[in-house]
Amino acid sequence: VRAALLAIGDEIVSGLTVDTNSGFVAAELRALGVEPVAGFSVPDDEEAIVLALRRAAAGAELVVCTGGLGPTSDDLTTACVARLAGAPLVLHEPSLEAIRERFRARGLEMSANNRKQALLPAGSEVLPNPEGTAPGFITPVPEEGRTVHVACLPGVPREMRGMVRASLVPWVAARRGGRRFLSRTFSTFGLAESRLDELLSGAFAPGEARVAFRAAFPRMNVRLTVEGRGGDPLDPRMDALEARLRERLGRAVYAVGDVGMEEAVGGLLRDRGATLAVAESCTGGRIGDWITDVPGSSDYFVLGVAAYADRAKAELLGVRPETLERCGAVSEETAVEMAEGVRRRGGATLGLSTTGIAGPGGGTEEKPVGTVCIALAWEGGARSRRYAFGERGREWIKTITAVTALDRVRRHLLGEEEA
Amino acid sequence: VRAALLAIGDEIVSGLTVDTNSGFVAAELRALGVEPVAGFSVPDDEEAIVLALRRAAAGAELVVCTGGLGPTSDDLTTACVARLAGAPLVLHEPSLEAIRERFRARGLEMSANNRKQALLPAGSEVLPNPEGTAPGFITPVPEEGRTVHVACLPGVPREMRGMVRASLVPWVAARRGGRRFLSRTFSTFGLAESRLDELLSGAFAPGEARVAFRAAFPRMNVRLTVEGRGGDPLDPRMDALEARLRERLGRAVYAVGDVGMEEAVGGLLRDRGATLAVAESCTGGRIGDWITDVPGSSDYFVLGVAAYADRAKAELLGVRPETLERCGAVSEETAVEMAEGVRRRGGATLGLSTTGIAGPGGGTEEKPVGTVCIALAWEGGARSRRYAFGERGREWIKTITAVTALDRVRRHLLGEEEA
Repeated sequence: VRAALLAIGDEIVSGLTVDTNSGFVAAELRALGVEPVAGFSVPDDEEAIVLALRRAAAGAELVVCTGGLGPTSDDLTTACVARLAGAPLVLHEPSLEAIRERFRARGLEMSANNRKQALLPAGSEVLPNPEGTAPGFITPVPEEGRTVHVACLPGVPREMRGMVRASLVPWVAARRGGRRFLSRTFSTFGLAESRLDELLSGAFAPGEARVAFRAAFPRMNVRLTVEGRGGDPLDPRMDALEARLRERLGRAVYAVGDVGMEEAVGGLLRDRGATLAVAESCTGGRIGDWITDVPGSSDYFVLGVAAYADRAKAELLGVRPETLERCGAVSEETAVEMAEGVRRRGGATLGLSTTGIAGPGGGTEEKPVGTVCIALAWEGGARSRRYAFGERGREWIKTITAVTALDRVRRHLLGEEEA
Repeated sequence: VRAALLAIGDEIVSGLTVDTNSGFVAAELRALGVEPVAGFSVPDDEEAIVLALRRAAAGAELVVCTGGLGPTSDDLTTACVARLAGAPLVLHEPSLEAIRERFRARGLEMSANNRKQALLPAGSEVLPNPEGTAPGFITPVPEEGRTVHVACLPGVPREMRGMVRASLVPWVAARRGGRRFLSRTFSTFGLAESRLDELLSGAFAPGEARVAFRAAFPRMNVRLTVEGRGGDPLDPRMDALEARLRERLGRAVYAVGDVGMEEAVGGLLRDRGATLAVAESCTGGRIGDWITDVPGSSDYFVLGVAAYADRAKAELLGVRPETLERCGAVSEETAVEMAEGVRRRGGATLGLSTTGIAGPGGGTEEKPVGTVCIALAWEGGARSRRYAFGERGREWIKTITAVTALDRVRRHLLGEEEA
């Protein structure tokens, strides 16, 4: 099955908004074994939309449109699909009621033009929208003797994503001759795509699973997809594949799902009843910012200190002036004292620190830009390591430092030897 | 003039990469008065590319392609354009020399397949690529009695962007009958698009300037574009328009260009010889992270403390336990003591603090999610303010808090009364 994607809206064609919807839909469809073959972006113009729909339909069995389902007069998607299908617009009562209910729940009167959103091409299958007013729909459209299905979804990414997962994916799966698909994503850190590929080579028999890699810097996601028919249970098969994947990749896998390292570390800290304090120099607060992106992080994150100035390192963290003088601010020795100091200051189970040269200035021959020291301190011990991340830009160095530091916490909590 | 955009590459159609190139090109063209009318994304497949090129050419005078200029066999853009133009591929010696030189500069031998990148359709105008191996080019293509120009650029965003600004934009401007355009972008904060629009209404006579708004949360950019012919000097005209814009928008304009608040604040701190220390509770380190994204920020950023736990607020920042008890951690009183404490701790000119409820949990009737207090302390004074940012998600609340806090520093440094 081939699919074409249409992103509808002036804001996309003019470059005011980046179309992330098409990519999301494409990835979801690919996991189902449906091949996205073309993408179009079209302005809010009836002729342009109809023309693009025709072109899309000519080369695909499924066309997925995002956008143009709003209540105003420049939202034209529904009318265009109806025109292409040769179907009249009919009022879909349950959708109208759902829209009314949304307004009622907020103590508002539904405005008259929202009624338009419940007018759908006759013969359509409706895709409910639990997060917004515009329902989606799938309409059969005749195209040179065959039937092309045109699926329309709202352009608001949050609404669209929920509807794809709850309605479009099951619809596609059901139509694919009872074939069903199950995907599972694993977040990994520390291994390049080529290395992951190498480690997994031969892990799965041909046809047993599809393996896809997706870089989402700083993490690399690996997705397994298995296919079955009818009542064939997919979960146990996936569990067996996951076990094999974990055997090959080991601790590089840090979470099931597309998950940030800060969330995985937060979960471990919570499980262990442990707390964390962080002393950041070159990351400047990024680790604390990430950790506190996770709701409930106040349970385990007690203190962050961005000790940019040497004076702050000495006074707040108790780094000894002679250490700073002898070894420099970017040194394993200073990093250890920062980690120990912030741990003591925060009364935390673990103390974590970063100090390094993010550039572009500040590099020396001995310590070029990208030199970073990360230390972890715990009850009765501490360990520092020096990294050479290379001169790949301030932003990149801050990010790789922050995630590497959190990974150190994770591996420590998993009982990995600090070596 | 109408333009169509083609993003070429399997990774885009399949959703592995989000196409940000088309939006960038579209925005640049719009600033020149060229209207983007359609966008296409196509896989690395010769028939698909040629078909999309034909469709794009049918509705536009200019087609801009990004991607598919690499050295490998799946890079097909050049061959497809040559086929469409009915032009043979010819070796462009200066480009070959430039590619060789890139390799030479790194002490490497040019691999044989890079030679392909210097083979361009006969009759093309070459767009040099100072950042990579693939040159771009513009090829005239006959289309139903008229000539369509197809511009091809590499897909690497950094290379593409530089080439658009250095070569494509001047080429388009030159072809538009000697008309020239000058754009200037202003970063603003604190006013919604509709309010900016209102304030600017009537500021410019019709035809005097084009005004465009672009939301880049948390900032809102305003872009003015003026048009001239021949030797008509555009800079003084733009300066006069800028003066009128600033008169209308006042302090809401914080920078010329698309600039983060942290950069504007950093520049002011440096100019004033002032230093900043930050105590972050609900922002968890985000302000420090942003500030230290700016190279050289160690000159004015001395200390950040993410005092998530009350104990840290008391011990490190000297917030009095009775203040925490009487007013709560999220209060103007606590915020002031945090700002004063971190200023003292860091020995800084200014102390800034945030404390609030980012949610989703932790809200009460009196202090619902989105309640945030921000305080600023200086030599001999301090001032706190309470904000109700609303329940718009943890990420949103952290961001709006961080930028609002930095804006307080900016306005203070500009001598605005703390009221």
